[in-house]
Amino acid sequence: VIEDVASVAQMAAAIKEMHVRGAGLIGAAAGYGMYLATLEASGAGSDGEFEASLSRAAETLRATRPTAVNLAWAVERQMRAIMGETSREARIARAFQTAREIADEDAEYCRRIGDHGVKLIRRLHRKKGATVHILTHCNAGWLAFVDYGSATAPIYAAHDAGIPVHVWVDETRPRNQGAKLTAWELGQHGVPHTVIADNAGGHLMQHGMVDMVIVGTDRTTFTGDVANKIGTYLKALAAKDNNVPFYVALPSSTIDWTLASGDRIPIEERASGEVTKMTGRLPDGSVATVDIAAPGSTAANPAFDVTPARLVTQFITERGICEASQKGLRSLFPEMK
Amino acid sequence: VIEDVASVAQMAAAIKEMHVRGAGLIGAAAGYGMYLATLEASGAGSDGEFEASLSRAAETLRATRPTAVNLAWAVERQMRAIMGETSREARIARAFQTAREIADEDAEYCRRIGDHGVKLIRRLHRKKGATVHILTHCNAGWLAFVDYGSATAPIYAAHDAGIPVHVWVDETRPRNQGAKLTAWELGQHGVPHTVIADNAGGHLMQHGMVDMVIVGTDRTTFTGDVANKIGTYLKALAAKDNNVPFYVALPSSTIDWTLASGDRIPIEERASGEVTKMTGRLPDGSVATVDIAAPGSTAANPAFDVTPARLVTQFITERGICEASQKGLRSLFPEMK
Repeated sequence: VIEDVASVAQMAAAIKEMHVRGAGLIGAAAGYGMYLATLEASGAGSDGEFEASLSRAAETLRATRPTAVNLAWAVERQMRAIMGETSREARIARAFQTAREIADEDAEYCRRIGDHGVKLIRRLHRKKGATVHILTHCNAGWLAFVDYGSATAPIYAAHDAGIPVHVWVDETRPRNQGAKLTAWELGQHGVPHTVIADNAGGHLMQHGMVDMVIVGTDRTTFTGDVANKIGTYLKALAAKDNNVPFYVALPSSTIDWTLASGDRIPIEERASGEVTKMTGRLPDGSVATVDIAAPGSTAANPAFDVTPARLVTQFITERGICEASQKGLRSLFPEMK
Repeated sequence: VIEDVASVAQMAAAIKEMHVRGAGLIGAAAGYGMYLATLEASGAGSDGEFEASLSRAAETLRATRPTAVNLAWAVERQMRAIMGETSREARIARAFQTAREIADEDAEYCRRIGDHGVKLIRRLHRKKGATVHILTHCNAGWLAFVDYGSATAPIYAAHDAGIPVHVWVDETRPRNQGAKLTAWELGQHGVPHTVIADNAGGHLMQHGMVDMVIVGTDRTTFTGDVANKIGTYLKALAAKDNNVPFYVALPSSTIDWTLASGDRIPIEERASGEVTKMTGRLPDGSVATVDIAAPGSTAANPAFDVTPARLVTQFITERGICEASQKGLRSLFPEMK
């Protein structure tokens, strides 16, 4: 669905209700949200009122999803950019330009993640001499970013380079981003893939059916801990237990340079109904939602979990591949204190 | 649904299509299936034909589900019992009696598992002085056995004894035995519980929200490896990583005294549609099945995984609690060679 978003309130709703989702895409959406905020503030009586209106919009956008750091990062980047100008017209123009920069950077960074990540897949293919089986969780594909996706960028790059790959797609309950989005994306691109229940990945790894795992991240501490879609931690444990390399692909916009530990990442708790109901297509093609839990039973729904750095083999960033640690990240981003 | 089963073919279909499921219950069903086999063979022209007919029925029943050992165990126990008689009438009577014994033993053994397991819950409650949070996977409750269930028996016993318990119910994709059966059972019994996506358990353990895990098993090697519903292994890994005790409740009928390693347990692969479709209730109360995966994408569906003994804290059996090892099992079952 292509949706026109014409106000901060609409953008906030689109992010909160997950019309747009995925680390990169909600960052880009928040960037444009802040541009809309400058338009909405443009009729303000004074510069003080303009800035107060902007601050309220920033707060509204930041509050939509607590875990992914791209949102806060994009909003703060916009605030700095906008405040760097003085006239109202220049502020609006600067906000639009910055929103485009955020979106273009996301696309470019994901492309580079593909360039770096494909080397890992090529190496596995040379070693194995057969199809490389890659497991991924949730959707960190182009539906989650502006263009290429993070975790899927190396997969598309490998497929396009003629390296035989096959993807195990975790369905990713409760919202099924894997079965619905990643499977669809891969199918559109002609990449061989098989959907599996989230429960199945450990068994496949025990039986040598997974050569590598690549996932995305919604927030990465500068020490290398990774908050990603709920269930990622379980796959990281299984990968470790079976000596399967576990990679996290991330544009640097997902790094939180202020957090030293994943324990301090706020974890979004979403509605119970996302677990107890399921939406799909009826045989006649219409869309229906069915109750799938015992009547009267309620559900808890934490949306993310934290995978500690010790379980991550390496990070794939736009600047290259590094160890999942403070030292590793600093080696690629020496300008960050 | 209460279903009358009047032939070996109907019983085999009921087991294969999971009208009855769960280790204990399919054992009991196979026991009665062998009684039906004696009735069907009773018109045979010779004893040789009677026995050949019985062997074919045994093979049909054994082939329905490959992973759970109770099925083979019940069929073999029946074959030994039936062959111990000589007249056709005595064989039929003996088959009926043995089927009842298998069912009654299952109920009695699960009751004893409750008696032993409740001590573990009581100990945790004394130590903690607050509600004990127990995570379980799939359904090893009375819907899976003849009466009390295995994994749930200690939970019901604790609840009935006034120990405050709360159960985290893994929904258990793809067939949702947790959300559909365990949640319903617990709700009927008034036990506080919350359904969670299978992905969520690791996160809850990381945050101290799970005091213990209790699961069932479909086949246990004499060395302590445990085949249980797909995804159990992932929860065992998370429990180990967070120092949460991980218990497996089992009547001894699930022990395979011939297998030294879980690697050799055959793992049932079920239909792709169990993953790509979901059945539930529409708002008008009618039952509907919806497609939940991207059109054209297929799924793999291994139904069980193997949790190695090293991840199991202890076994809860009808004879008491023991280490998940050959030594532990032999200490409780010294008569088994």
